[in-house]
Amino acid sequence: MRVEIVTLFPELFETFLVTSFVGRAVKGEQLEVRLRSPREFGLGKHKSVDDTPSGGGSGMVMRVDVLVACIEALDAEAQHASQPCARRILLTPQGRPFVQPIAAALSAEKAIMLICGRYEGFDERVRSYVDDEISLGDFVMTGGEVCAMAIIDAVVRLMPGVLGNIESTREESHGENGLLEYPQYTRPTEFRGQHVPEVLLSGNHARINAWRREQAIDKTLLRRPDLMTKANQA
Amino acid sequence: MRVEIVTLFPELFETFLVTSFVGRAVKGEQLEVRLRSPREFGLGKHKSVDDTPSGGGSGMVMRVDVLVACIEALDAEAQHASQPCARRILLTPQGRPFVQPIAAALSAEKAIMLICGRYEGFDERVRSYVDDEISLGDFVMTGGEVCAMAIIDAVVRLMPGVLGNIESTREESHGENGLLEYPQYTRPTEFRGQHVPEVLLSGNHARINAWRREQAIDKTLLRRPDLMTKANQA
Repeated sequence: MRVEIVTLFPELFETFLVTSFVGRAVKGEQLEVRLRSPREFGLGKHKSVDDTPSGGGSGMVMRVDVLVACIEALDAEAQHASQPCARRILLTPQGRPFVQPIAAALSAEKAIMLICGRYEGFDERVRSYVDDEISLGDFVMTGGEVCAMAIIDAVVRLMPGVLGNIESTREESHGENGLLEYPQYTRPTEFRGQHVPEVLLSGNHARINAWRREQAIDKTLLRRPDLMTKANQA
Repeated sequence: MRVEIVTLFPELFETFLVTSFVGRAVKGEQLEVRLRSPREFGLGKHKSVDDTPSGGGSGMVMRVDVLVACIEALDAEAQHASQPCARRILLTPQGRPFVQPIAAALSAEKAIMLICGRYEGFDERVRSYVDDEISLGDFVMTGGEVCAMAIIDAVVRLMPGVLGNIESTREESHGENGLLEYPQYTRPTEFRGQHVPEVLLSGNHARINAWRREQAIDKTLLRRPDLMTKANQA
C-alpha cells in the first residue's frame, strides 16, 4: 500500500515511520510513504501557503491553489511511475468520524492520500478536490498530522502479514462483535493482594469463554452502552 | 504543565516534541515532558514487560507489576523534586471517548501521566492504579502513543500563551457552540471557476455573521446531526 501525506511538517513523521510495526512495514516494503509539503508550492518570497479569511475573522486559511498544486504533483508522480492515483482524504473536524469499519475499508485501497491542515482550516473549495473527509473525533487539534498517524496505525495493522500474530487483529476491542474487550490478566497470579480470577486458571475453556463473554457484555453495558445498542443492531 | 509519558517507544515522540507549537511550548518551558519506558523495569535477562494471557488467547498482555513499578518511579521523581504527582491516565479503547471538554479539563491540571499500552492490552489490575481511562475513538491501534500525541496536541493548544492568536482557540469547530465550523475562504477570489461567496467580500459584518451562522447550522445538520442535538441541549 502507498500512503501519500500532504503536510507542512513532514519532520513530524520521521520517527513514526521508522519505529515499531509501521517501521517494519516500511522496511518490508508493504508500506510505501511519500511526504510532500504544500510549502514547495507556496507563493512569493515567503512561500506562503495561507492567507487571512475572506470576510474577516481570526487565524489563517490554507489556500486552495497551493494545496491543489501539491495534490496534483503527487498524482503526477504516481502516474509517471504507472501507479494508480491515491484516494484523496482530507483530514478535518468536519469529516466523518474515524471508526474501525473505515480503517478496514482503507486497508483494501492501493493508495491513500492524507491531507493535513494547519491553522484555522482549509479554503472550502479544497473539498471539491478530495474523495473523502475524515475526522479523528470531536476535539480540536492544531493540525491533521496526528490524525494521519492514527489512520496509518489503524490501517497498516490490518494489512496481511504486518502484525506477526494474525489472531490478535481479530479478537481486540472494537472488533467484529462490537463489544469492549473482556478483562485480560497475566502473571503474576497475585499482585499486592489482587488475584487473577480463578476461572482463568481452571483450564476449562468452555467456562473461560463463557466468563469472558459475560465480562465483555458487563463492561460494555457499564462503560459504553452506546456500543451495546450498535452491537445488538448488527 | 508537566506531561509524563509511559511508553515502550519513547523514540516515537522525538520529532513530535520538537516540532511546531508543541516544540515551542517545550522550548518556552510551558510544557515539561518526561518519558519513561516500562522496559527499564522489565523482568529477567530480556527485561520482559508482558506475558501470555491467563486462560489462553492470542497476543501478549502487559504485566501489572512492571507497569506499576514504572508509574511509581515517575511519582517518586516528582516527589523528589517537590512537585505534585501527575493525574494517571490509562490510554485504552475501554476508556471514555476523548472529546473537547476532556481536553479543556486536562489543560487545567498541573501534571498528567499518559500510560501507553502495546500488544493485546493491560493486565486488568492496572486499572486500580490509575485515575482515569481515555480512548481516542472506536478504532483499534497497536498502542497508546498516537492517542498520547492527540491528547498533548489538544491540551497544549488550550494553555494560555501557547498559540499566538488566542481568538483562534475560541472560534474553531467543536468549540463553544458545538457546531461544525462555517465554510472558510481566502484568496484567490476565483480558482478554476469557483468563487469566494459574494457576501464575504461585502464588508457587511452583520450579513457575514448571519451567513456564517446559517452555513454552520446547515453543515452540521447535513454532516453531523448528532452534534446538532447536543448543541440544542446545551
